[in-house]
Amino acid sequence: MSQPQIGIIMGSKSDLDVMQDAADVLKELGVPYEITVVSAHRTPDRMFKYAKEAHGRGIKVIIAGAGGAAHLPGMVASLTHLPVIGVPVKSSNSIDGWDSILSILQMPNGIPVATVALNAAKNAGLLAAQIIATANENITQNLIAYKESLAQKVEESAREMQSGI
Amino acid sequence: MSQPQIGIIMGSKSDLDVMQDAADVLKELGVPYEITVVSAHRTPDRMFKYAKEAHGRGIKVIIAGAGGAAHLPGMVASLTHLPVIGVPVKSSNSIDGWDSILSILQMPNGIPVATVALNAAKNAGLLAAQIIATANENITQNLIAYKESLAQKVEESAREMQSGI
Amino acid sequence: MSQPQIGIIMGSKSDLDVMQDAADVLKELGVPYEITVVSAHRTPDRMFKYAKEAHGRGIKVIIAGAGGAAHLPGMVASLTHLPVIGVPVKSSNSIDGWDSILSILQMPNGIPVATVALNAAKNAGLLAAQIIATANENITQNLIAYKESLAQKVEESAREMQSGI
Amino acid sequence: MSQPQIGIIMGSKSDLDVMQDAADVLKELGVPYEITVVSAHRTPDRMFKYAKEAHGRGIKVIIAGAGGAAHLPGMVASLTHLPVIGVPVKSSNSIDGWDSILSILQMPNGIPVATVALNAAKNAGLLAAQIIATANENITQNLIAYKESLAQKVEESAREMQSGI
Amino acid sequence: MSQPQIGIIMGSKSDLDVMQDAADVLKELGVPYEITVVSAHRTPDRMFKYAKEAHGRGIKVIIAGAGGAAHLPGMVASLTHLPVIGVPVKSSNSIDGWDSILSILQMPNGIPVATVALNAAKNAGLLAAQIIATANENITQNLIAYKESLAQKVEESAREMQSGI
Amino acid sequence: MSQPQIGIIMGSKSDLDVMQDAADVLKELGVPYEITVVSAHRTPDRMFKYAKEAHGRGIKVIIAGAGGAAHLPGMVASLTHLPVIGVPVKSSNSIDGWDSILSILQMPNGIPVATVALNAAKNAGLLAAQIIATANENITQNLIAYKESLAQKVEESAREMQSGI
Amino acid sequence: MSQPQIGIIMGSKSDLDVMQDAADVLKELGVPYEITVVSAHRTPDRMFKYAKEAHGRGIKVIIAGAGGAAHLPGMVASLTHLPVIGVPVKSSNSIDGWDSILSILQMPNGIPVATVALNAAKNAGLLAAQIIATANENITQNLIAYKESLAQKVEESAREMQSGI
Amino acid sequence: MSQPQIGIIMGSKSDLDVMQDAADVLKELGVPYEITVVSAHRTPDRMFKYAKEAHGRGIKVIIAGAGGAAHLPGMVASLTHLPVIGVPVKSSNSIDGWDSILSILQMPNGIPVATVALNAAKNAGLLAAQIIATANENITQNLIAYKESLAQKVEESAREMQSGI
Repeated sequence: MSQPQIGIIMGSKSDLDVMQDAADVLKELGVPYEITVVSAHRTPDRMFKYAKEAHGRGIKVIIAGAGGAAHLPGMVASLTHLPVIGVPVKSSNSIDGWDSILSILQMPNGIPVATVALNAAKNAGLLAAQIIATANENITQNLIAYKESLAQKVEESAREMQSGI
Repeated sequence: MSQPQIGIIMGSKSDLDVMQDAADVLKELGVPYEITVVSAHRTPDRMFKYAKEAHGRGIKVIIAGAGGAAHLPGMVASLTHLPVIGVPVKSSNSIDGWDSILSILQMPNGIPVATVALNAAKNAGLLAAQIIATANENITQNLIAYKESLAQKVEESAREMQSGI
Repeated sequence: MSQPQIGIIMGSKSDLDVMQDAADVLKELGVPYEITVVSAHRTPDRMFKYAKEAHGRGIKVIIAGAGGAAHLPGMVASLTHLPVIGVPVKSSNSIDGWDSILSILQMPNGIPVATVALNAAKNAGLLAAQIIATANENITQNLIAYKESLAQKVEESAREMQSGI
Repeated sequence: MSQPQIGIIMGSKSDLDVMQDAADVLKELGVPYEITVVSAHRTPDRMFKYAKEAHGRGIKVIIAGAGGAAHLPGMVASLTHLPVIGVPVKSSNSIDGWDSILSILQMPNGIPVATVALNAAKNAGLLAAQIIATANENITQNLIAYKESLAQKVEESAREMQSGI
Repeated sequence: MSQPQIGIIMGSKSDLDVMQDAADVLKELGVPYEITVVSAHRTPDRMFKYAKEAHGRGIKVIIAGAGGAAHLPGMVASLTHLPVIGVPVKSSNSIDGWDSILSILQMPNGIPVATVALNAAKNAGLLAAQIIATANENITQNLIAYKESLAQKVEESAREMQSGI
Repeated sequence: MSQPQIGIIMGSKSDLDVMQDAADVLKELGVPYEITVVSAHRTPDRMFKYAKEAHGRGIKVIIAGAGGAAHLPGMVASLTHLPVIGVPVKSSNSIDGWDSILSILQMPNGIPVATVALNAAKNAGLLAAQIIATANENITQNLIAYKESLAQKVEESAREMQSGI
Repeated sequence: MSQPQIGIIMGSKSDLDVMQDAADVLKELGVPYEITVVSAHRTPDRMFKYAKEAHGRGIKVIIAGAGGAAHLPGMVASLTHLPVIGVPVKSSNSIDGWDSILSILQMPNGIPVATVALNAAKNAGLLAAQIIATANENITQNLIAYKESLAQKVEESAREMQSGI
Repeated sequence: MSQPQIGIIMGSKSDLDVMQDAADVLKELGVPYEITVVSAHRTPDRMFKYAKEAHGRGIKVIIAGAGGAAHLPGMVASLTHLPVIGVPVKSSNSIDGWDSILSILQMPNGIPVATVALNAAKNAGLLAAQIIATANENITQNLIAYKESLAQKVEESAREMQSGI
């Protein structure tokens, strides 16, 4: 795989079930990525180093997933000027996901986190690809094809349902 | 102003009090933008046209603000492959902002919206600038300077508070 | 089946488990309907076409079910003057149904959606029949009989419970 | 005014500030209505009589507004086969409107209430007109004109905003 | 069993799993009761008759359980001057119980419902017994003994846990 | 005033604005009461003494109002076999009243608290009167008259509204 | 085990599944503790005695876990000047844990409870150890080692994940 | 003032209105403290330095207040083994305080934050004093006196209210 452009990080190995979707869609769309575990609370030094060095290593977008009092996306955003996409994970210690969502979404003025839906790592991957595509015609074409495939699946469902009545 | 790269749209003129912050921070960071009213519910045809033509007109990122059952960001995202940033607005018909947030954030797989905090149009503008900066060194430098100015203001507050005791 | 008067649409084939109840009660009450998949986010063009042509095809009421950031009922309502009944579906990506409910219910002034309870497609079907009945004496009689059957079942339950003590 | 087709009722005189919007939009659209106070909790007998006699008096749709533990729309729906539109009112004794919404929306299977947004009496009036329009070409034309006027206001706002930059 | 003093009613036979606890604790405490199904929405006439005749038949307290948009306790309270105890039931159509709780608890001034915890039919039975006990020395003694038995069970648990370490 | 039958207590003097309504309606209905401040958290010994001695002093029902983490009603209920009515107060330190409601309502099995709506001290007073009335014909007659006066006020409002159109 | 410094109490034996984690981490860190059942509602006298005598018996911190309308932590805090740590337990009678959290967290001014996350008895144990460590160098060293072990586990996960791609 | 034992920090100077209460009660109880502004998001380096050096400078407890996506208390807790008390601040960008509470409270296992009620900086100060008091007899006596003064104020209120009837 060529030089990663997207860094996917998560607060705990147990978040991988959710976060793998981001990697999968990036692979499908041809955007190189890296993936690892970085905990804001258990490895704050590792998080500092990761966030501060990402730009220098060629990373253009960071996707960060975390659950409960999820501080990883916001703290990474405070340490880099790169766009950071936050994935609220409905982890076992979360209250129906509300804590994960609010801890990631409600960032103060000055430090944005691009938040996606609960557990929506796939959409985080797509959003990262859309960001890369703003200056990359190949990825743009891949995204347009992807969008068309979504519509085709719905139309197929519609044909099945109507013929089934 | 040169060719707009960011399109700022909102569901109603009354959202301008909130959405002006996006325009202001983009101006401060040197990113050209356009701003207008596009209602998903009252002008669906206008919304379709805007979303489908934005890429062709040179727009790279769309910022969409709306309140209540806020469908504008998600519908625009369904009609373009450009990254769409959603600003949940706590409008007068909103239930403490919860409806605005959930209607924008909880998009299905395949159609991401980069959601920012309630009323956080400033962060939407910053996020749009961060996206442009992934392929623009000038904007990158402006963002780094902006981040430093945030830190300086905090340190100034700290000095004032400590000397005040 | 004669010319459909009710159009039942849903955002995804996976919503059919819930939405079938609307079809079943309409069948029971003798109101002709059609049923298909129309996704606001994955097939916006299909949705536009469906909503704009429904009246011309003889549809009198549209029932639209969707989950999460559920934009289908509200967007269809924005594209037609027909009454639109929204069914919030507690889909797998929904936060306990709150997102589905608020995205459908909290429509802005000018564009109503007649919202029913979470997953209550049966009530959506009944409401559609009630609307048809405002100008149809046969359906009125069917609704009156239906209401009586509800009461009879409760009275039967009461007899069983009281004799069981 | 000719024979009322819409019955607007509310749980308390203090709900009139909100509920007047329903009357106003019906007047604008040319749909005859009546308006009065009927309390589920303080005048249950009056509510029974109103709901049971409405159809016989020529009423085709009932709009019921109430706040807090709002039982009026659901109880009226249990007593008539007419379509009932519920308006959750954010009254002084309501918890941010959540109680009003859930008490009206979450009706059991068999007894639908067409619920609109919090305080959205205007949309209740529009929905009632849409129901009447399913069998009335004049009201249909009025609704189409109303929808066009909504779009025109947005386009006017857009022109103002764009020329103001 | 002697003349019932407590009337236990519920909106649906499916609520019996929860509501049986009220009957059991009343039996244990020696307070005669009756139990049946009365639906506010499906049998409004039956509910009116039950509520209006309860006092005349010797009933002193009514316990009413219901779920979702739970109107039974409040409507019964509107139709009698007897104390009414409401049990919010977390039925299958309820949103985590919030709708059941708010529909029963948030009654307007003038019409109280004594609400107990979600699914807490046992506490409804105890509360009914406490009300009877205000004018009945036997039931008072039974309640005092019941309270003592609660404390004894805790002290037994404490001994087990401490000896287990 | 004769021997008090109802004890009204509240966690803080600042709750008196809300709790006075309980006293007023009891006075109107002719039920003797006493009123004082008892804080579960600041005066636990005073609370123990009050709750344990209430029955012996002739008190038949206790009304307890508190806000935030409101422990007064539940703790008093744990210390006496008398019926305890809890009034959730939306005090300044409360989160929109949710903490007050849940802290009072969600009592464990064995220790009921008869909870009324947020700030609904008037309904607490009425409920206390209804409990006294189960063994007191005079208070019964007063309650029946009170209920009739509620209906008359609604009918008056109806006449005013209808003549005003 | 030497003289206990931490008292772990819980409202019901069924809370032990959650609360055992507090005991386990204290054992691991070398802080002596005791553990028992004390119910605020079923054994108020036992709770009074426990809370008032704890300091005299050498207890320095009390950890109290409870669910639903959880009054144990706050009432114990009202009866002692020792620091009290509250563990909201998501017990079977809790509404998704919200009642447990708010009943423990939202204490009035003057009576703090140090609240930890839902079911987070392990963190309660750690916090108690941190409090002891403020005047105990041994426990301080144990906490520093514990923190390092957390980081090492994350770094190990990271190595596994990266080598696995 | 002697060597500070408590470090009070807050995310923004605008939090001082709330956080001053912590300083005031510590002063009243004779516990030396320091107070300053440290933003997790705008000055992450400053936060790292503060948290890592606090123990070495003699600080024994850190009180951290923040609003919205409040990461300051949790991040400081991740960087020190000292006990950290979190104060959720209902800042202007907060959603009724829910985001502030959940971001602080719902910390993962291994990293506790002792959370107090919304805006309850006074209780944070008291809790810090209670922690110091576990190894300081003077502060213990001050806390006991403080607790007595709370009870006296309630009893005074009670006398005023009772004599006022």
